[in-house]
Amino acid sequence: MNSTTRAPLSPECTETQARDAQHHLHPFTDTKALNAKNARVIERAKGIYIWDSEGNRMIDGMAGLWCVNLGYGRPELAEVAAEQMNQLPYYNTFFQTTTHPAAKLAEQIAALTPGDLNHVFFANSGSEAIDTVIRMVRRYWEVVGKPWRKILISRENAYHGSTLGGVSLGGMGGMHAQGTPMLPGIEHIRQPYWYGEAAEGQSEEEFALECAKALEDRILEVGPDNVAAFVGEPIQGAGGVIVPPPGYWKEIQRICKKYDILLVADEVICGFGRTGQWFGSQTLGIEPDLMSMAKGLSSGYQPISAVAVGDRVANALIEDGGEFNHGFTYSGHPVAAAVALENIRILRDEGIIEKVGADTGPYFQQQLRERVGQHPLVGHIEGTGLVAGMALVKSKEPKAFFGKDQDAGTVCRDHCFSNGLVMRACGNRMVLSPPLIISREQIDEMIDLILVCLDKTEASLKDLDWM
Amino acid sequence: MNSTTRAPLSPECTETQARDAQHHLHPFTDTKALNAKNARVIERAKGIYIWDSEGNRMIDGMAGLWCVNLGYGRPELAEVAAEQMNQLPYYNTFFQTTTHPAAKLAEQIAALTPGDLNHVFFANSGSEAIDTVIRMVRRYWEVVGKPWRKILISRENAYHGSTLGGVSLGGMGGMHAQGTPMLPGIEHIRQPYWYGEAAEGQSEEEFALECAKALEDRILEVGPDNVAAFVGEPIQGAGGVIVPPPGYWKEIQRICKKYDILLVADEVICGFGRTGQWFGSQTLGIEPDLMSMAKGLSSGYQPISAVAVGDRVANALIEDGGEFNHGFTYSGHPVAAAVALENIRILRDEGIIEKVGADTGPYFQQQLRERVGQHPLVGHIEGTGLVAGMALVKSKEPKAFFGKDQDAGTVCRDHCFSNGLVMRACGNRMVLSPPLIISREQIDEMIDLILVCLDKTEASLKDLDWM
Repeated sequence: MNSTTRAPLSPECTETQARDAQHHLHPFTDTKALNAKNARVIERAKGIYIWDSEGNRMIDGMAGLWCVNLGYGRPELAEVAAEQMNQLPYYNTFFQTTTHPAAKLAEQIAALTPGDLNHVFFANSGSEAIDTVIRMVRRYWEVVGKPWRKILISRENAYHGSTLGGVSLGGMGGMHAQGTPMLPGIEHIRQPYWYGEAAEGQSEEEFALECAKALEDRILEVGPDNVAAFVGEPIQGAGGVIVPPPGYWKEIQRICKKYDILLVADEVICGFGRTGQWFGSQTLGIEPDLMSMAKGLSSGYQPISAVAVGDRVANALIEDGGEFNHGFTYSGHPVAAAVALENIRILRDEGIIEKVGADTGPYFQQQLRERVGQHPLVGHIEGTGLVAGMALVKSKEPKAFFGKDQDAGTVCRDHCFSNGLVMRACGNRMVLSPPLIISREQIDEMIDLILVCLDKTEASLKDLDWM
Repeated sequence: MNSTTRAPLSPECTETQARDAQHHLHPFTDTKALNAKNARVIERAKGIYIWDSEGNRMIDGMAGLWCVNLGYGRPELAEVAAEQMNQLPYYNTFFQTTTHPAAKLAEQIAALTPGDLNHVFFANSGSEAIDTVIRMVRRYWEVVGKPWRKILISRENAYHGSTLGGVSLGGMGGMHAQGTPMLPGIEHIRQPYWYGEAAEGQSEEEFALECAKALEDRILEVGPDNVAAFVGEPIQGAGGVIVPPPGYWKEIQRICKKYDILLVADEVICGFGRTGQWFGSQTLGIEPDLMSMAKGLSSGYQPISAVAVGDRVANALIEDGGEFNHGFTYSGHPVAAAVALENIRILRDEGIIEKVGADTGPYFQQQLRERVGQHPLVGHIEGTGLVAGMALVKSKEPKAFFGKDQDAGTVCRDHCFSNGLVMRACGNRMVLSPPLIISREQIDEMIDLILVCLDKTEASLKDLDWM
């Protein structure tokens, strides 16, 4: 179908909205506010575009929710899903049993990941992968005779999921504030957000070392022998796409090595091509002991996640750990695993990630900086490959941020949604993470839309007297 | 294909086993022990039968892992999955957006569940549903101005999943022992396991009241105003299929009402027909404030779970809660939701659950008791509908259990696997939970196999001098 064709109004739309308002509790949503205006029904999608039930076409600048790396509507994935479902729609991997897709996918992940991440534990979501990481690193230290190494260190404004384990490890204050108490044994250090938090005149390099030093300080404060692991997203995603400045990860890695602390890369967003290489760890120069992944693993077509485990931890668990009392009914689900395999095959065979790394990623970053960076609302742009974040500011020079109650991001996001673009607001940072198949022409189209929406946002903010 | 045909050897088998041994960390598994003998590759399945890659056919007495309620190989589910995947393989429900399948499924669950469970929050697994319950009940009490109500009370030997939240709430000692510390604010009371734990001569009714009184005692001990909720499986599943004796749930319900404590039914195993009604709460006479569900919701064909929320909690969260900072990328995944809808449609249209309630369930229970109950190894059988547990004992009269190191259950399970039957061991309790489509003739076939395997087990245990 031509992407500009206006689809007919769906007869189901009103019914779906009514059902939704009456019965559906949405994630991270104020239901009362949503029901006052009704949910928008997303009905179909193809490539980088989604359509709502009123026929509005939008560029999906978020790839669903950082996940549809392959773009929508790849029939190969539907074929594989149906075939596997007819052959074997489910079997567990608890009963000393396995399936072809689960074993193949474990091998694939081991082959794609860097270093000696040779073992794979499956789960359903990024959250469950993080819970697996927490349980596994603590178990590792128990098995090697240092059960006092319990503490995991993470960062403020990190996102690691929504289970109790994920919320606790993550650094989102709004999540910590609901449903306390959190899991004990978690520490948070400052995030490496140079544009927002560096001292005036501080170079990126100086700031990087200062932020990494916060890890060493905290380790010394709680006692090096009490720390199990440091966990970080190579690039913070839901925190607003924050790219650590040069030198940060190298120094973090040095500190972890110095105190013999496991290093975990949470690749849920960066994994499977987002940064122009298979994993963010490769782009950022991290050599993790464990890696959590989800989203891009199946391009979101199926719920599946995994933890890749390096030889050090895996060998200890295997040789001396006995039974690891952990796992999920759907660990290694054959349909989800088959779809993930096909997703990986296409990403590889069509050279999609190489293209992001060599062509569309650099083009996107350059065009964003050149065309969008000039906009008076945009204080700073950071990103690499096909992920980017921009800070909305009241004034660029001198730098002035919006006030606590001035929710400029939401104003901008609403203009985007009304004008055919999904761009997400993380506070007053706008973030982009389009499908990896986006072409140069589509990048141009997206940036044209961004500029329109920024102009509208600026006008709205002036009406509100916020700038 | 005729169910007795021997399938050809799969050329992939050896390769899959090698990949699996090298790269796949299985849930709840001693990897070293598994790799010493290689995993069995489950290759295809139809109805109640599964086949491994060597052509061995087995009756799946566990419906996968308590989940394939509809049986294997229903092409309608594969068709729906492929269709939805081509139309819209993913979209999130975070961005004030919804999809037809998510909204319809929320309405369906609201319609099927008893009482005023009118609102639905989606997740991917039973574990995530339980994490959602923990966060949601604590959030509820915060919203209604009693943030000190934090404690959740559960039971020893309960299973509520493998996330940190799920492990902490569950009552499995082996899980608590790995990867400590657990989540604070959880209390465990004794389980209502009459055959195993009642005093000599104590009636089921007396024991039921004694076990329920443990709840009241604990509430008074920690302070009624500190308790958020009591959570229980209507029938404990992974604990060994333990059916609470008559009167237990009525008394639990009375105590929760008395102290204004929320009652949560974890229906992950009992839900969607296992007990002969749609939910175990209906069979056991429970009126829960919240209900977690997974497995049977999609018959395991897709990873999906949900929490059904009653009006009391939902209305407070909606009216006064603002944004609930919780949710998963794949909450309400359109493909998983579409498959769940089709699963529910078939369960309903084909009257499968009614048949379990009126015909095959009672037949199964009667045949088990009449034919298997006589076996010298079987001390006691409990169950209802198509779920049952039996205690293996050293001696029936006087009652004598096997010792701590006498793992009779594993011996029995291994005989079952070698003889064409998947029957699970939970300690020295053998459990059964076949697909709900099992016929009377297939029940006979399964029970014939159970008797063969019990005889072999008895011989092995005598060889071991365990009886």
